[in-house]
Amino acid sequence: MKIKVGIIGATGYTGGELIRLLINHPQAEVKKATSRSNVGNDITQVHPNLKGEISLIEEEFQIDTFLKDLDVVFLALPHGKSAPLVKEIYQKHIKVIDLGADFRIKIPEDYKHWYELDHACPELLTESVYGLPEIHKEEIKKAKIVANPGCYPTSIILALAPLLANKIIDANNIVIDSKSGVTGAGKTLTDTTHYPHINENIFAYKVGNHRHIGEVEQELSLLAKSKVVINFTPHLIPIDRGILSSIYVIPVKDITQEDLDKLYQEFYENCPFIRLRDKKTLPQTKWVQGSNYCDIAPIFDERTGKIIVFSAIDNLVKGASGQAIQNMNIMFGLDETMGLRLAGIYP
Amino acid sequence: MKIKVGIIGATGYTGGELIRLLINHPQAEVKKATSRSNVGNDITQVHPNLKGEISLIEEEFQIDTFLKDLDVVFLALPHGKSAPLVKEIYQKHIKVIDLGADFRIKIPEDYKHWYELDHACPELLTESVYGLPEIHKEEIKKAKIVANPGCYPTSIILALAPLLANKIIDANNIVIDSKSGVTGAGKTLTDTTHYPHINENIFAYKVGNHRHIGEVEQELSLLAKSKVVINFTPHLIPIDRGILSSIYVIPVKDITQEDLDKLYQEFYENCPFIRLRDKKTLPQTKWVQGSNYCDIAPIFDERTGKIIVFSAIDNLVKGASGQAIQNMNIMFGLDETMGLRLAGIYP
Amino acid sequence: MKIKVGIIGATGYTGGELIRLLINHPQAEVKKATSRSNVGNDITQVHPNLKGEISLIEEEFQIDTFLKDLDVVFLALPHGKSAPLVKEIYQKHIKVIDLGADFRIKIPEDYKHWYELDHACPELLTESVYGLPEIHKEEIKKAKIVANPGCYPTSIILALAPLLANKIIDANNIVIDSKSGVTGAGKTLTDTTHYPHINENIFAYKVGNHRHIGEVEQELSLLAKSKVVINFTPHLIPIDRGILSSIYVIPVKDITQEDLDKLYQEFYENCPFIRLRDKKTLPQTKWVQGSNYCDIAPIFDERTGKIIVFSAIDNLVKGASGQAIQNMNIMFGLDETMGLRLAGIYP
Amino acid sequence: MKIKVGIIGATGYTGGELIRLLINHPQAEVKKATSRSNVGNDITQVHPNLKGEISLIEEEFQIDTFLKDLDVVFLALPHGKSAPLVKEIYQKHIKVIDLGADFRIKIPEDYKHWYELDHACPELLTESVYGLPEIHKEEIKKAKIVANPGCYPTSIILALAPLLANKIIDANNIVIDSKSGVTGAGKTLTDTTHYPHINENIFAYKVGNHRHIGEVEQELSLLAKSKVVINFTPHLIPIDRGILSSIYVIPVKDITQEDLDKLYQEFYENCPFIRLRDKKTLPQTKWVQGSNYCDIAPIFDERTGKIIVFSAIDNLVKGASGQAIQNMNIMFGLDETMGLRLAGIYP
Repeated sequence: MKIKVGIIGATGYTGGELIRLLINHPQAEVKKATSRSNVGNDITQVHPNLKGEISLIEEEFQIDTFLKDLDVVFLALPHGKSAPLVKEIYQKHIKVIDLGADFRIKIPEDYKHWYELDHACPELLTESVYGLPEIHKEEIKKAKIVANPGCYPTSIILALAPLLANKIIDANNIVIDSKSGVTGAGKTLTDTTHYPHINENIFAYKVGNHRHIGEVEQELSLLAKSKVVINFTPHLIPIDRGILSSIYVIPVKDITQEDLDKLYQEFYENCPFIRLRDKKTLPQTKWVQGSNYCDIAPIFDERTGKIIVFSAIDNLVKGASGQAIQNMNIMFGLDETMGLRLAGIYP
Repeated sequence: MKIKVGIIGATGYTGGELIRLLINHPQAEVKKATSRSNVGNDITQVHPNLKGEISLIEEEFQIDTFLKDLDVVFLALPHGKSAPLVKEIYQKHIKVIDLGADFRIKIPEDYKHWYELDHACPELLTESVYGLPEIHKEEIKKAKIVANPGCYPTSIILALAPLLANKIIDANNIVIDSKSGVTGAGKTLTDTTHYPHINENIFAYKVGNHRHIGEVEQELSLLAKSKVVINFTPHLIPIDRGILSSIYVIPVKDITQEDLDKLYQEFYENCPFIRLRDKKTLPQTKWVQGSNYCDIAPIFDERTGKIIVFSAIDNLVKGASGQAIQNMNIMFGLDETMGLRLAGIYP
Repeated sequence: MKIKVGIIGATGYTGGELIRLLINHPQAEVKKATSRSNVGNDITQVHPNLKGEISLIEEEFQIDTFLKDLDVVFLALPHGKSAPLVKEIYQKHIKVIDLGADFRIKIPEDYKHWYELDHACPELLTESVYGLPEIHKEEIKKAKIVANPGCYPTSIILALAPLLANKIIDANNIVIDSKSGVTGAGKTLTDTTHYPHINENIFAYKVGNHRHIGEVEQELSLLAKSKVVINFTPHLIPIDRGILSSIYVIPVKDITQEDLDKLYQEFYENCPFIRLRDKKTLPQTKWVQGSNYCDIAPIFDERTGKIIVFSAIDNLVKGASGQAIQNMNIMFGLDETMGLRLAGIYP
Repeated sequence: MKIKVGIIGATGYTGGELIRLLINHPQAEVKKATSRSNVGNDITQVHPNLKGEISLIEEEFQIDTFLKDLDVVFLALPHGKSAPLVKEIYQKHIKVIDLGADFRIKIPEDYKHWYELDHACPELLTESVYGLPEIHKEEIKKAKIVANPGCYPTSIILALAPLLANKIIDANNIVIDSKSGVTGAGKTLTDTTHYPHINENIFAYKVGNHRHIGEVEQELSLLAKSKVVINFTPHLIPIDRGILSSIYVIPVKDITQEDLDKLYQEFYENCPFIRLRDKKTLPQTKWVQGSNYCDIAPIFDERTGKIIVFSAIDNLVKGASGQAIQNMNIMFGLDETMGLRLAGIYP
């Protein structure tokens, strides 16, 4: 029998992507989807691309009715909105995967620092698992609440994990320059994402204070077993999907390109969604478009002695909905690649 | 046992798309792929997006060796290159689906007129079937050679078929204004498809003499049971994938919007890849991106008494590789949607 | 002494473009600019591209104060908003160029039909001149109110004028398929112009009922000296600037390509902003980007006997602010090209 | 009397941009333009955007004939091609501005290291001046040979000069992450710049070995009065024009945001093409599109103690042809802004 899935917040980009991906999942089925803006309508009115593949009328949201018969709930809501709902779902012993930010940061004070909000149920923070399967797979298997990582953090943590876990680099001199497609900014209309503004344009934003810094430093510190501080600068670029992170670090020991390659190969040996690239095939966002892959290339710059790591993901797949389904697979004991064997759409 | 597939011309965009789609086909498997430029290398060196999903070393092409054990061959070659190969494959009783132009036009003189070339095996033209499943499904079932339609023709013929088959419109006053993404022009480098030229640009090309006119007029004439002459103007627009055709016709009898809607619904009743849209949900190429759907909306303009039909496809899927797989499914007695249950990637 | 210019509605795209172009005008100077959203701020806060070239604090709008010492006022306001202001400016004997729609349509009932609004000062409609210099230059010289044409109408009327004025074509079988960049939709945020929606997309909108039909049919009928009815379908494409109109018409007399070329050359002999192109150099929006040119190519399709005319403009320049300045030049007895000798920005 | 200009290598993007900008220069006139591919044709056949603004038939190139009556020659040629020509022009006492790389690097061995070529006239290297007017204005005034800086170096050196000249930062920990539009890669067709590849894509290239590193380190070392070593990573992004450089450095003394702002204001006090921005108005390539401005914002990140400097230019204007004209103005004693008072085209 298939896993019965409910989606709260189904009208956004990640909601639509969840449905698109789950339509082809052999062991899961979207039973319910809800959102404030589409009550009474079929989900394909909001997501016309899905017409012909699914039909699902959204009902007025009432939590008890909604949760009935569900095995797992995906939440795709703004921060602050998830926490109270997660609590209710958790109490009903239904698994929950939160694509929002509310359960990513484990220390309530840190959450408050980055989100300027008191956490609604701090007692559940330790119950939840940071859902980056390449790092936390064993915990995800047993988790009842999974906090699906942010898009930038996914691209960054996966790029740096082998270096920090092996104490190869200076943990306080990490420069992260990330470039994101516009879907990362969501469906809400803003001056910045109005076509004539971002088209033919590139700019940095939230320099040094993007909220994702919190979860990145938390996870990198865990890996390094010491406090890690990063410089993180996100940029918006005129593409739909994709994040490329270019990360500059300083080795604290002698290292060669061969060492680096070996290190990454061993670290990611059993990770089906990590593809290692090299200097001649540097990660490109278009190679991962529509797929759950994270392409990574660690490069040793002999001239300067620095290491530069590049990683590319599709922010809506490995950076959100695909990773959420990967987490679901792991939570339910399925092969983690189930329903996610998607080559990137190129071109 | 799975259908054993061979692909000749595997390095182009349609070759890559065939492999991408077949990877997830439950009843078919790509066994061999060949091309001039990639001998000795893995197919994923040319198509890095496919890395992790398939591994297939291309061998020096020798037709007998290549055909051994294959059930079907897809050809993705320039016009003139397919015909001799098709003949050899046909003689070995292996099914063949030609994504090129060589078998689309049934009259050798017409082929010569549009392609400025004598046909290499005119005797096989009548053996081959024009592979537009919504029109020729029964013939495709029995076909040994399927000529997969061109991308523009697919979008045009599907948009006009119900009107011409029912003699609703003047068959000599058909204005077709099509807009295509740049993948339609292929992988060959040209001044026109150099990024700085086509980006932020739009222009018409081959006004009144595009080769696709031949197959469109042939098929529309068959549907209308009378000679159809069209005005066809293709345009290049700065998107990767997608064709939008806007078609202007003149009804020869009284008609209403309701009549039109009913006509199209009935005509396409059993066609899983046709999605009918209306004035409020006019076809958009982005709703079909990555999918095998053709979205169609016939609109009656009351003020002027004209009919305007819009159709949108992904030129690499319904306009090429997806349709080729749909044809394969039909030729092998499978459900025509097998492996093609793809919602469009949005955004 | 320089012409003293005031701009009402200075924060939109056409307002910004007016200022950008006027900065380099040798005989005009922007003295005042106003808008609701930017009072108290420098105009370069809304248009950061202009920083360093101009500084102009916007004051609370009070019409008498605003008009003081001005020679001409440009209005860049939504329809319905211009009319009352134009009346006041006109009464003070100050020249006015309205980039909005309120004075383009000469018959109040037609205005009401297309804009669903009673005109605020119908008595001024006959005082105003439709500001398409290539057609109405003599009237513009004497005009006190100039109604600057819409962007689509500019591209359409210029493409068809020689044919209709010379009664070459059937005036009731005119198919106009126009494609516009996204700045044509203005600065207001909409779902349609959100980057992830319109990027990698194309679609038609307002099929058969776009408001520009009114002014196009009015002007074409004047040229043809008989009622002209058009089919007009606008499309949105993912570029910033540019309109390409592809226009399909049926000759009512024998004609050749040479006749067509001669006809257009003669008609536009003294028009410095019309560039005639041919089959090998079909109009491309990128050749006119940032310039006041309208590139036109009339093509005779021998196979079908139809004529197809292509025209390309930059919707913010020849389709709006550049043309407005061209009108100002003519109204003030200057060379019409003054300040507008701009080659297109390519690439 | 106007400066008589000759252009060698007129068919590329920078050649076309030189002509476009010089058309409106009040004190200069393009008298001759030459290139291998367009002999016998008008320059507007290669640059159709310029039609109507200039007419200039390209003649068979013969250096003596070409140089006759010229006051200055611009060279827009690949590296290695300029040097011999520059020598000949220099010997005839005609001023020369080389947009190529041959005279940027002052030490022949360094030139050989980066360009893998012996320099054709090393004796002239000391005669030539690195044409970055904000740094070398006095030398440019007297120069006979100006080596126009590369596009990346312009964006980088201008961003870092105030910090290095004032010894604010660690000169051996400079991370430069640059993103360039596709015109930076020139007009030559490549797989990388084929529209379907770079559209919807981003990737790094030439990590740690891009040729521009040579001139950047040379100039930064001069400013710092000590050896500077940089990490430079260029990326290609899907826009036509624009470079955004994001530069990460480590202060070696206590500093505040106010200090930084003051430092940059003073350093660039008399530089009309430098516009300083701040955290709320971070540089965006679209604000400088088509203009000669370099927008710069130095940001102090309090949380980490690092400095991040952003700079944005149009690679074809301030990064090439605009800067070349700025150099010409200075060499001929004109106001350096003459003909370059161009606000950015937005949007």
